[in-house]
Amino acid sequence: MASINKNYLKLPGSYLFSTIARKVESYSKEHPDADIIRMGIGDVTQPIAPAIIKALHDAVDEMGSDDSFRGYAPDLGYEFLRNVIAEKDFKARGCDIDPSEIFVSDGAKSDCGNIQEIFDVNNKIAVCDPVYPVYVDSNVMAGRTGEYDEALGKFKDVIYMPCTEANGFAPELPTEVPDLIYLCFPNNPTGAVMKKARLQEWVDYANKNGSIILYDAAYESFISEDDVPHSIYECEGAKECAIEFRSFSKTAGFTGLRLGFTVVPKELKAGGEKLWPLWARRHGTKYNGAPYIVQRAGEAVYSDKGRSQIKQQIAIYMENAGIIVDGLKAAGYEVSGGVNAPYIWMKTKDNMSSWEFFDYLLNEAQIVGTPGSGFGPSGEGYFRLTAFGSRVNSHRAIERIKKL
Amino acid sequence: MASINKNYLKLPGSYLFSTIARKVESYSKEHPDADIIRMGIGDVTQPIAPAIIKALHDAVDEMGSDDSFRGYAPDLGYEFLRNVIAEKDFKARGCDIDPSEIFVSDGAKSDCGNIQEIFDVNNKIAVCDPVYPVYVDSNVMAGRTGEYDEALGKFKDVIYMPCTEANGFAPELPTEVPDLIYLCFPNNPTGAVMKKARLQEWVDYANKNGSIILYDAAYESFISEDDVPHSIYECEGAKECAIEFRSFSKTAGFTGLRLGFTVVPKELKAGGEKLWPLWARRHGTKYNGAPYIVQRAGEAVYSDKGRSQIKQQIAIYMENAGIIVDGLKAAGYEVSGGVNAPYIWMKTKDNMSSWEFFDYLLNEAQIVGTPGSGFGPSGEGYFRLTAFGSRVNSHRAIERIKKL
Repeated sequence: MASINKNYLKLPGSYLFSTIARKVESYSKEHPDADIIRMGIGDVTQPIAPAIIKALHDAVDEMGSDDSFRGYAPDLGYEFLRNVIAEKDFKARGCDIDPSEIFVSDGAKSDCGNIQEIFDVNNKIAVCDPVYPVYVDSNVMAGRTGEYDEALGKFKDVIYMPCTEANGFAPELPTEVPDLIYLCFPNNPTGAVMKKARLQEWVDYANKNGSIILYDAAYESFISEDDVPHSIYECEGAKECAIEFRSFSKTAGFTGLRLGFTVVPKELKAGGEKLWPLWARRHGTKYNGAPYIVQRAGEAVYSDKGRSQIKQQIAIYMENAGIIVDGLKAAGYEVSGGVNAPYIWMKTKDNMSSWEFFDYLLNEAQIVGTPGSGFGPSGEGYFRLTAFGSRVNSHRAIERIKKL
Repeated sequence: MASINKNYLKLPGSYLFSTIARKVESYSKEHPDADIIRMGIGDVTQPIAPAIIKALHDAVDEMGSDDSFRGYAPDLGYEFLRNVIAEKDFKARGCDIDPSEIFVSDGAKSDCGNIQEIFDVNNKIAVCDPVYPVYVDSNVMAGRTGEYDEALGKFKDVIYMPCTEANGFAPELPTEVPDLIYLCFPNNPTGAVMKKARLQEWVDYANKNGSIILYDAAYESFISEDDVPHSIYECEGAKECAIEFRSFSKTAGFTGLRLGFTVVPKELKAGGEKLWPLWARRHGTKYNGAPYIVQRAGEAVYSDKGRSQIKQQIAIYMENAGIIVDGLKAAGYEVSGGVNAPYIWMKTKDNMSSWEFFDYLLNEAQIVGTPGSGFGPSGEGYFRLTAFGSRVNSHRAIERIKKL
């Protein structure tokens, strides 16, 4: 008789953002006239830039014509895209990454969720606390985390690395050595960064211990300060210990277009076995490539026009971030983030729990944010706002919060 | 120290189609002027139909405009697409499938590869032999198949169900009861079908034994005969035992656009646990939806114009199939398939092995097909051709084969 993967039953409740969506939907039904400002899910609001729209139209025309139609894409992505990524995202920053080490996909979320498959089920993972839920949940499903401890809000076999005010929301090197280390900088949800010297310590630590760093750099284009690395491969020795994930979602507004990529260096090994062939095999077996038209859109992101249009969009979001940070501080809140990342991390009011504060903001100010506790126990008492809304809404949200 | 998922090392050689691609590339390099006719990978050649191209352009324009831009898609797909699928693919055929039971994805390959994750790692799978490699390989990666037996060409813990001339290339009900049964009809690679009465026996067998049928209906739009079911849900009781996969790839030329869907009935259970919430959780955790523009393209497939344009395309492919089947028979080959499926399944010449025949056809006639043995041991001595080429090439391929 067929039976289920019981690891799924260890997952506490439903996925964070689904829960938020349900709460907001139910509030909207009860208050149909409520003018809700959404600063919860990190979804962008500006339309796709004109240079990218043009590339999409051109590619659509190609697909409609006999002599330019394209069927299955190459397993690992089209060369036109992998070449420009290697050139502009890596070589331009002094990182020696070859196009063949770049795997184009439908987004960093898929890759971050799937990457664990190529590792042993007994490998122990370490995650920041708070953390983007996908890293943990995908490992729960795989049976790598042990049971959930309701009281602690933690899985038994996961190494949680607290990111707190005290350490500037960047974790200490763990004393118990993990096999797989998930790092995301600029960080979701806290907006914190790791300077290059600090990240180099992690690379050295991983190389010394034979750990693999799974580095999520989805927010690198929001970096505004100079000594913050855009890629882990800016650190010496990172090609021997790190896989990096990148996304077009926040950089270029691709949340609804779906495009990302993962870098697996050809020489990278775990326990003596190369990882590149495993990830290539996974890609070839369970995936069929990102749509041609979307890969052409990705290529346009790197064109001169595309770049300058996207830079403007990011500037708009980061101005929003400034408005929100300054406004919250003026309203008496403790706030961090919002400088090298589109996320603002704030302490709740009057020691409310994160979910209490969620309900409070939704009910009293019709503002949707994300409860910090949804990202892990050290997120309790915190709240995440995103800078992806409109200018008008960023101002209005701050006005509403100030009035509370 | 990190280590790899050693199940990957059980996979014999590389993925079938990657091997073919390498062989063809190497032949092309040695014979740069060779005029190769590709009938190997089941990739379509006709451009996307005009009604769908129009829908794509319209959706691209929406993405470029402030008031119509769309970010993250709903987890399970847009309602406009799920509604029309439920209506036209299922309700119109008397199948009681609700839009909420439809999960939109980037293709049937991904879903067929990923579905095994929600089942217990100790569940035993049964597959047709020959079989589309993704079903087996994804289970190898998960550790569900045991070791590969080189001599037999089989994994130890998999139930192989031979599909031979004797049973019309449709398997017998297995004597050892499997937990998970992969069926694909119309079949890839043999082009065989299962009539409704026969498929009903499988549904009854699964319900009696508590097995789950994973039914790949990617080729249903090529069915030309009346008593062949388009969906397993045409059988009584299938909602209690079956998950169905569908694809837009072959139906509407979406191999380069990427769109498919999976049906998981709300009431379907394995070992007493409902499967719908597990698949929904997997979707929400590891996937972020198909691109909005591609979902709009999928919707256009069901419009009156879209339908009639696609019907014409399918008719062209199936006329190719007829030309190939008749031509091969005239050349003295034993042939099946090609009536309800775009695949032609032929016996090799002079008892050559499948790979010998592959090399023979490539070297002597510059035709690329797929060795039957790549699909499993019972495929040895067979060869698959596809009808997805142009009319001209279908004729030319037959002329070349006749001349050999």
